[in-house]
Amino acid sequence: MGLETIASRDNPRIKEYCKLCTGKQARRKLGKFVLEGSRLCRESLDSGVLVEYAFASGDWIEENSGMIEMLKERSIPIFQISDPLERRIAETSGPQGIYFTCFLMLPLEKEALARKKRILCLYDIQDPGNLGTLIRSADAFGFEAVVLSSGCCDLFSPKVLRSTMGSVFHLPYYIASDMLRFEQEMAAHGMTSAAAVVDHADLQAGYCNLPEIHLLYIGNEGNGLPENFAQACRYRITLPMKGKAESLNAAMAAGILMWEIMK
Amino acid sequence: MGLETIASRDNPRIKEYCKLCTGKQARRKLGKFVLEGSRLCRESLDSGVLVEYAFASGDWIEENSGMIEMLKERSIPIFQISDPLERRIAETSGPQGIYFTCFLMLPLEKEALARKKRILCLYDIQDPGNLGTLIRSADAFGFEAVVLSSGCCDLFSPKVLRSTMGSVFHLPYYIASDMLRFEQEMAAHGMTSAAAVVDHADLQAGYCNLPEIHLLYIGNEGNGLPENFAQACRYRITLPMKGKAESLNAAMAAGILMWEIMK
Repeated sequence: MGLETIASRDNPRIKEYCKLCTGKQARRKLGKFVLEGSRLCRESLDSGVLVEYAFASGDWIEENSGMIEMLKERSIPIFQISDPLERRIAETSGPQGIYFTCFLMLPLEKEALARKKRILCLYDIQDPGNLGTLIRSADAFGFEAVVLSSGCCDLFSPKVLRSTMGSVFHLPYYIASDMLRFEQEMAAHGMTSAAAVVDHADLQAGYCNLPEIHLLYIGNEGNGLPENFAQACRYRITLPMKGKAESLNAAMAAGILMWEIMK
Repeated sequence: MGLETIASRDNPRIKEYCKLCTGKQARRKLGKFVLEGSRLCRESLDSGVLVEYAFASGDWIEENSGMIEMLKERSIPIFQISDPLERRIAETSGPQGIYFTCFLMLPLEKEALARKKRILCLYDIQDPGNLGTLIRSADAFGFEAVVLSSGCCDLFSPKVLRSTMGSVFHLPYYIASDMLRFEQEMAAHGMTSAAAVVDHADLQAGYCNLPEIHLLYIGNEGNGLPENFAQACRYRITLPMKGKAESLNAAMAAGILMWEIMK
């Protein structure tokens, strides 16, 4: 194929890749993030993500001529990496063969949010797997955007991106530095909100007809939403349970609420 | 407190603890498993699990006199472990202070299963976090037992136990070495089954009145249920989706199906 081959970890593009892989600060400072694996890389191309570099193993290059064509058409530089180097940069146990450095997608403008019908708003979600699953489920249930409080874990960490299974490229996002002020601004635009709570709910999902809900707020895994925040929302919504489990996993509870709102 | 202190990794009880922590074979051979953290340990005591030994840090012992009393009442030997030793045996990043070696709970008899109203049946679930979340959700939605195919990951691995948040102690379990034969036996007892599928379903959850379903089968994360197995069940059930996500996470899909069956 005549591709330039990289075998050294000291190659500046590889050094940058590794930095972007592990550090939120590096991602923010450089305005880039990384992807690993055919599925995510393919989804990013299909979704118009700006890819800076592609790194691929010899085996992968042989087996994926279609995607190599696509990269060349878009003038994305492709570097072949040696197998030992791949094992050093791969995050997952079975090396995936293909790695991208991409430019961060820009967040949505706040004004554009006010025209959406269903938005998932996440308040200080800590676990990357939960964050990814939440975004994947929002995508499956027809939600149109995701809002993250600045206390959430980083949307562009490799673990989050993997857990979204590519849904991160379907939903625009917005980062709210002050969630309460964000809610007040959305309410001023006539948008209706519901806070997911365990106790003292106005709405029992699945057991009453739900009013129109534009914004669904989900709280932190351990603590839920702050009490004053939940009170500031138009509604408080809960899932009635039957067994002895004290509560559902945050991603599960949110998934069922989105399902009920979608139906 | 006058407790015997352990500081060495070569202590036979600690060596056994570490072996049980990492190995499914060791758990099976010795008929024991281990627990870490106040919440899980407390739940196990409340649920009648047979605890062989407790290991606790000095700080934990000082702060948990109530639970120390409870252990003494049940004649469970307590060993104080040194801080460096605790850091070596802890699985989670923030050491939890308390560790149990327990005897495995016995599985339910098959005959007892046939008297249950709602059973979650898991076919080759591979991810420990998914398995734990599934059991936690089954508990929350009033399911009464969980059946695992022999291809599922080990119910008693520390990661699964943590993800159940103690629900593993509320639901009896059964291991089915041949899931198809198991389904045929349950059907012969008059029990109705539904297989979770992506395509070609008879039942659209959330959009039709569901018949009575005693057994809900959930397939492997990547492959779902084998086609011939799904055909052998009384019904095939699915969740209609709206967005671009190809499918939901297995635990999420199962949670929503359990929710719809419970309602």
